Amino acid sequence: MKLNQRGLLVVISGPSGVGKGTVRKALFDIPNHDLVYSVSMTTRPPRDGEVDGVDYYFVSKEEFLKRIEEDKFLEWAEFVGNYYGTPKDKVEEQLELGKEVVLEIEVEGALKLRKKVKDAVFIFIVPPGRQALYDRLLKRGTEAKEIIEARVKKADNEFLLAHKYDYIVVNDEVNNAADRIMAIIRAEHAKTERTIHNYLKMLEEKNG
Amino acid sequence: MKLNQRGLLVVISGPSGVGKGTVRKALFDIPNHDLVYSVSMTTRPPRDGEVDGVDYYFVSKEEFLKRIEEDKFLEWAEFVGNYYGTPKDKVEEQLELGKEVVLEIEVEGALKLRKKVKDAVFIFIVPPGRQALYDRLLKRGTEAKEIIEARVKKADNEFLLAHKYDYIVVNDEVNNAADRIMAIIRAEHAKTERTIHNYLKMLEEKNG
Repeated sequence: MKLNQRGLLVVISGPSGVGKGTVRKALFDIPNHDLVYSVSMTTRPPRDGEVDGVDYYFVSKEEFLKRIEEDKFLEWAEFVGNYYGTPKDKVEEQLELGKEVVLEIEVEGALKLRKKVKDAVFIFIVPPGRQALYDRLLKRGTEAKEIIEARVKKADNEFLLAHKYDYIVVNDEVNNAADRIMAIIRAEHAKTERTIHNYLKMLEEKNG
Repeated sequence: MKLNQRGLLVVISGPSGVGKGTVRKALFDIPNHDLVYSVSMTTRPPRDGEVDGVDYYFVSKEEFLKRIEEDKFLEWAEFVGNYYGTPKDKVEEQLELGKEVVLEIEVEGALKLRKKVKDAVFIFIVPPGRQALYDRLLKRGTEAKEIIEARVKKADNEFLLAHKYDYIVVNDEVNNAADRIMAIIRAEHAKTERTIHNYLKMLEEKNG
């Protein structure tokens, strides 16, 4: 019995290369969940195998800037020359339906969102060590050296922003990290501030 | 990888008859945990099947009052003529070892403890409805009518103290309730305030 009916907005963030996407996929593979993924919009070119409307909505920079003007993003951020944003519509609709809306976004976007949205849950994914992240960024090898170096520098700055998040989850093993996030979602639903209203309503019911 | 090494003090509480003991047993049946149970001391007579040192330490009222004088309890409470308390030693020792120390205590004792202990997690177990609790108290049938009536009255007062807890867990089905508590424990370990210290230490490490 779920005392809190409304879904949670779950923000999964962390430095680039930490494995946010892989953790998010493992999270969705856990059976019996009410998760939905909020697909981000981006101006960066698709990587091999990425599908428009599934991994991202891929749009031109002109299109993206027009949508910023129209206030159609919950948050957006520029990152190493590309734009990333969360389409505002759909998110609220899903939360009302009791779905947990998962956002996987860059640190900059997450911290902007933190100021706007009061009851979202902010999770910072970290590598088991700094070197592990550098190694992963170097191995990815799909981008030019300058881009990788920019990512490493950005990651170093972002490491120090962990304290602005509600939870820190170590991505030592992807399924462990996903399990921890699922535990956080379940625990947040039981938090007194989210449940007390429906609990008191339950007490008032005649046969309650 | 656990960024927070210290165990949690987990306080499971709620109105009498809500099934705290059953939920606690189901919690301990979940595989691969680091839970230890803090056995309470009481002056109430053992029920059928209850074992001294396992379910409770059963002591005389004189012995109990002497221990109060000696400040040997983390918390204690009088409840329908009987005393219940948590022996102070052992708890800190277990937390230091990284064990989650689970206390299953009455509402009065839990709220006294809340004022003393800052980093414990307080979980309020509630029935799926008020009538469910009354039915359970009546069916238990091991006590005199006046004692049952006292418990019902006490429960009615205690229902309204839920807001003083961190989490509200509905005991609709005992394994669901236990799973929710386990999720709360895992989530609390990932909370930024518990992990940031070790996280920053990890960043400082040369090969970290």
